[in-house]
Amino acid sequence: MTMALAGWGDPARRTGLPLHALGWLEREIGLGAPSTPVPPWELPPSALDPVHQSRLVGLLGREHVRTDDQARLRHAAGRSYLDLLALRAGTADSPDAVLLPADAAEVAAVLRVCAQAGLAVVPFGGGTSVVGGVAPLRGRFASVVALDLGRLNALVAVDHEALTATLQPGLTGPAAEALLNAQGVTLGHFPQSYECATIGGYAATRSSGQASTGYGRFDEMVLGLVVQTPAGELRLGRGAASAAGPDLRGLLVGSEGAFGVITEVTVRVRPQPAVKRYEGFFFRSWAAGIAALRAMEQAGLAPDVARLSDPDETKVQLALSGASKVQRGYLRARRATCFAVFGWEGTAETVRSRRTASLSVVTGAIGVGTSAGDKWAHGRYDGPYLRDDLLDAGVLVETLETSARWSSLLTTHAAVRSALQTALPGAVVMCHISHLYRQGASLYFTVLGKQADEPIAQWQQAKRAATDAIVASGATITHHHAVGADHRDWMTDEVGALGVEVLRAVKAVLDPAGILNPGKLIP
Amino acid sequence: MTMALAGWGDPARRTGLPLHALGWLEREIGLGAPSTPVPPWELPPSALDPVHQSRLVGLLGREHVRTDDQARLRHAAGRSYLDLLALRAGTADSPDAVLLPADAAEVAAVLRVCAQAGLAVVPFGGGTSVVGGVAPLRGRFASVVALDLGRLNALVAVDHEALTATLQPGLTGPAAEALLNAQGVTLGHFPQSYECATIGGYAATRSSGQASTGYGRFDEMVLGLVVQTPAGELRLGRGAASAAGPDLRGLLVGSEGAFGVITEVTVRVRPQPAVKRYEGFFFRSWAAGIAALRAMEQAGLAPDVARLSDPDETKVQLALSGASKVQRGYLRARRATCFAVFGWEGTAETVRSRRTASLSVVTGAIGVGTSAGDKWAHGRYDGPYLRDDLLDAGVLVETLETSARWSSLLTTHAAVRSALQTALPGAVVMCHISHLYRQGASLYFTVLGKQADEPIAQWQQAKRAATDAIVASGATITHHHAVGADHRDWMTDEVGALGVEVLRAVKAVLDPAGILNPGKLIP
Repeated sequence: MTMALAGWGDPARRTGLPLHALGWLEREIGLGAPSTPVPPWELPPSALDPVHQSRLVGLLGREHVRTDDQARLRHAAGRSYLDLLALRAGTADSPDAVLLPADAAEVAAVLRVCAQAGLAVVPFGGGTSVVGGVAPLRGRFASVVALDLGRLNALVAVDHEALTATLQPGLTGPAAEALLNAQGVTLGHFPQSYECATIGGYAATRSSGQASTGYGRFDEMVLGLVVQTPAGELRLGRGAASAAGPDLRGLLVGSEGAFGVITEVTVRVRPQPAVKRYEGFFFRSWAAGIAALRAMEQAGLAPDVARLSDPDETKVQLALSGASKVQRGYLRARRATCFAVFGWEGTAETVRSRRTASLSVVTGAIGVGTSAGDKWAHGRYDGPYLRDDLLDAGVLVETLETSARWSSLLTTHAAVRSALQTALPGAVVMCHISHLYRQGASLYFTVLGKQADEPIAQWQQAKRAATDAIVASGATITHHHAVGADHRDWMTDEVGALGVEVLRAVKAVLDPAGILNPGKLIP
Repeated sequence: MTMALAGWGDPARRTGLPLHALGWLEREIGLGAPSTPVPPWELPPSALDPVHQSRLVGLLGREHVRTDDQARLRHAAGRSYLDLLALRAGTADSPDAVLLPADAAEVAAVLRVCAQAGLAVVPFGGGTSVVGGVAPLRGRFASVVALDLGRLNALVAVDHEALTATLQPGLTGPAAEALLNAQGVTLGHFPQSYECATIGGYAATRSSGQASTGYGRFDEMVLGLVVQTPAGELRLGRGAASAAGPDLRGLLVGSEGAFGVITEVTVRVRPQPAVKRYEGFFFRSWAAGIAALRAMEQAGLAPDVARLSDPDETKVQLALSGASKVQRGYLRARRATCFAVFGWEGTAETVRSRRTASLSVVTGAIGVGTSAGDKWAHGRYDGPYLRDDLLDAGVLVETLETSARWSSLLTTHAAVRSALQTALPGAVVMCHISHLYRQGASLYFTVLGKQADEPIAQWQQAKRAATDAIVASGATITHHHAVGADHRDWMTDEVGALGVEVLRAVKAVLDPAGILNPGKLIP
């Protein structure tokens, strides 16, 4: 899917804000100045040296070295709130050129040329980063190119016996699923960015899908990698599991384009499930819901999809979805405050038996049936579209996330909420849990606030306060959004000064000229 | 447990070779010259410079800087076949001193002193390496010290909500389990080296226990690490799961003492199971048994313990265990050729339901009851003791292992067998699978042969042939024995020349003087 220039995905998928939602927003948080994205704006001329350009053209062909405004604008930014503000205002910076290699050999050749020429390179998949991961930062270089992997979009192989698939990085989520489904298998990886994000991006950022509790995080799915670096090729991942020294595969997964460009990924796949049952439940408190999630997960009986909204998120969902007075009364009478979706996938028989097993260790769940679950599933990729509508209406809307051990989940939740509410008086701060581990879970916050006159500074301050609170509570600076430019300053908190030195040393070997994604990942 | 000087564990646990087994060995493979270990031999004087020695004494106290022969001999070697030959012959090299720090601060201080003084350091846990991981190699240094972590043997904390435990590295398997069991939890990590191996060693070598199919590999259990390096301390592992860049934790797990010394590990634990049901089965062929393992694992229904012996291992087990004529006739009549043990752990109810689920996807299993399973469980740590008896009788006995995807498991199995049989004519080559993954499984080979007059060269040649065959078949050079000195030459095959450069760069940051475990891991 081609991404809208200053918004998400296919603009035709947008539905507009329902009037009752607009009314609720006006009452509850207040609306800032309404806005409309500027039309595509004229860019300053590309700073790419003609000599370098002609070398790149010699490698890739003229049509695959693009310096026109349209191509450059389409690679100008990711899709964070601040990215969208810049794109809507026409102030986003753009790369000097967009390169479209056809295969791994061309990627390798491009990296060699760029290293010699001193061109910063931003590897580019779906452009869905919400942490500044694809920002066209030049670092100490005079120009920067986006290395778009869209032409590396083949399913290389499926091994039905080992249940693995080898994929090229430029495949989007839906394209990969379509190719895999045709072979009877699925990746089971469905992040909210699914419609636009790519396989290479999933691997480079340790992505996590909405069914990660069942199918695993993307980093757990990756069995093998081929990576092109300015220093040569890396091929990692032999056998089924290995004790052959440190895990270099895990060092490249999550390297966010700063160590190399992933040109092939071998991942675990599963037989396509015949049945997907998503079901809605309510719990009487956040703590009761968390206890239920923990009980299922630690018993090894968790559903594939396990989501739980806190009371504020539940309230907002009910308000925005236009729940009827009768429905709200029904829930109030049952003191149902936290909405949950549990989803099981498999054969009719395994779904039935696994559902029974999951619920056997849960107490206090108020079932509200599959229609609520199906509604969630139907709208699971709608969030980013809704955000564009909210921006039109002058709403500050952004998300941030972390993970914590079960024993500190409530503390981290409270600390981040408090930091955001202090930084953004009057804002609504909501949270859900959507990825379970035996030792803990993710926390995914959404903030809705009244956009201030200086919205960039407004959000930067809130983001800083929230991330400081995350660090202070012992949680991780990111569960699945990655580091990019936005979390880079906190990497020393995450891995320590010596950990950062290790990252620098690895980068110095693989990218001695430092051309790959300057300004990202490593402080 | 203190390790026997030239053999395994507690010598009182040895039972001697049953006469029928000795007869079988004589008939089937022939016996070499019988041997007995030499008594503790006199060592050349310690090469440790008195100035350095007194600095170390100043740090640790006189009784924790040992240069006496007994301490040095006890840190002379691991427990590979070649180690045992050297220990039995009195030709094993020894470290110049054995250091016994009390805590992480003393470990850090020792590393600083050794880096300044230019002393090679071999981190030492249980001394159970079978790949030369604790060999006292000096590298380019004049002397080498063993850094024994035995005094760091505390259970630091148990988090019952997150189900995690923080452990010091010097705890042996049984000591750690005893402390954890007292709190109602278990690590569930039971490698064959369990009686002597340590927590730090498990982490440093990516160990895998016999119940790894259910409890996971040790590297999967590690959530957090504290590591002392000559360049400072690393503290890794925040939150429950993270996307904060490359996985540095996975870079230190498996670093085999070449990057730093692990002084604390936070691991997943589980509630102690009330019931452990181990059950024996037979399959009519190796392929049929593998198909059963794969079916259970890929359906997510595998037992916690899942082992399958190939026809040769089954034959030898039956011969050595002294199965009766009636028993053998019963099995022959059923064409039962491959023995398997499946084990489920949990509550009585979950064991029952999980067993039913596992077996529901298996065809062709011939059940022989829990007595066969219990017999396996009872003798699960006996192998290394038996090896000492076999060495006394002049038998070449060694193991090696790998893992492969399901689609190449039979090919790798055949290639390694053929390489060993060619290198060791007349030897018996046996194999079992004991660790399952959705994508593949481990292969664990045991070789019994007639010891030649030059047993070292005899085994080195066979090992080289087997490892070359593993590499050529696409499998990994080690599934859980690690790299050490013995697999070092094949690391380039495993991770490529550029992968080796990455390891060198990481080492240069963390251990700039190169004092840590020279001659191991990195070619």
